Amino acid sequence: MGKDEKMKTKEVMVLEDLLGSNKKIAAEIRQKLTDTGILTINLLSSPGAGKTTLLESLSEILAPEYKMAVIEGDIETERDADRIRAKGIPAWQIITGGACHLEAKMIGKLLPEIPADLDFLFIENVGNLVCPASFDLGENIRCVLLSTPEGDDKPKKYPKAFTTSDCLVISKTDLVSVLPFNIERAKKEALEINPALITFTTSAQTGAGIKELAEYFSESLQKIRRTNA
Amino acid sequence: MGKDEKMKTKEVMVLEDLLGSNKKIAAEIRQKLTDTGILTINLLSSPGAGKTTLLESLSEILAPEYKMAVIEGDIETERDADRIRAKGIPAWQIITGGACHLEAKMIGKLLPEIPADLDFLFIENVGNLVCPASFDLGENIRCVLLSTPEGDDKPKKYPKAFTTSDCLVISKTDLVSVLPFNIERAKKEALEINPALITFTTSAQTGAGIKELAEYFSESLQKIRRTNA
Repeated sequence: MGKDEKMKTKEVMVLEDLLGSNKKIAAEIRQKLTDTGILTINLLSSPGAGKTTLLESLSEILAPEYKMAVIEGDIETERDADRIRAKGIPAWQIITGGACHLEAKMIGKLLPEIPADLDFLFIENVGNLVCPASFDLGENIRCVLLSTPEGDDKPKKYPKAFTTSDCLVISKTDLVSVLPFNIERAKKEALEINPALITFTTSAQTGAGIKELAEYFSESLQKIRRTNA
Repeated sequence: MGKDEKMKTKEVMVLEDLLGSNKKIAAEIRQKLTDTGILTINLLSSPGAGKTTLLESLSEILAPEYKMAVIEGDIETERDADRIRAKGIPAWQIITGGACHLEAKMIGKLLPEIPADLDFLFIENVGNLVCPASFDLGENIRCVLLSTPEGDDKPKKYPKAFTTSDCLVISKTDLVSVLPFNIERAKKEALEINPALITFTTSAQTGAGIKELAEYFSESLQKIRRTNA
């Protein structure tokens, strides 16, 4: 018991150090990218909720008008970056090699490669609805995806991803007719724990909701540029 | 840079301590439960892959013949344990309060409450395809679920859950007709990284595959009891 307690204290101390250092690096990244006029969006979700597919769909709306790029975070494989590059969008793959989330220092290392004339920098986090929520990456907007097959009971079961996000995207809504998923219940539950959440419903299959989400990002970009001016 | 390196060393040391201590406790739990003739199964998956629903379906086949109980691991809420109890199955809820995985010591604390005449002890881990894979809970069988909406590319993107498991359950196969999911591709990819995996395909909606999975658990139970005899 005594040993257990001591262990926990050491664990908590190391975690506090890590989060403190991460927070500092993230603030520097946010300052630098925002000053350059780049809007950075951190996408969080469970594996397979449709983050890469959403980016593919967004690229069709945003790329003709804006310059966008993607940082892909994955435990293994370069598959997601390859999918983004196939759309003609520059992508950097961070392979975490086991680590369950991205950290600000991983983004910091890529900063010298980010072109200054970029409009949107999307960061697709490791597929994990838990750990990435604790790590600020220097984003302007944190966006959590909840796909309909995951179930409408997830916001209160995995609260941190929802309480720390600015925007909630309920994805794969084309499947809702064959699933026991109530969109209004999911939204209500998410808003109960984070009333400031801006919510979207999307389907990459039908294209529903993608334009509205792209407009939200465009307006947010104009906002940081007005602040910079 | 130097500070960063030192931090990492401290992190790695703490993690090694934690995993070493976890491994020792897990081995004790496995020995004790196996000696008592209880088969313990650790279920891992992403959030919403259908672990609780699978347990509900399994209970309909197993409960008339065997005595089963469930330990539920969740970050927040007692929802999953309530669902299991509604089926007449005893369930203990572990609320991790933020922690992204169960650890052996959490199971160890419940051991005095586990009835000695139990046949099956199921442990439903926190919904997370990454972190729980690193923590042995003292189970006899580790079972990873991959639901069809998550995509057939997940085994190599999240390898540890697949390489450390004994059995793979591809769930929600009733949705395969409306999804870009190739069951054979997913199985092949999982078997490439872990040739010893025993694979099942299930649908809690249609009941397909549940009986076969229940039989696998029953045979595994007989096996540990023969070894004990």
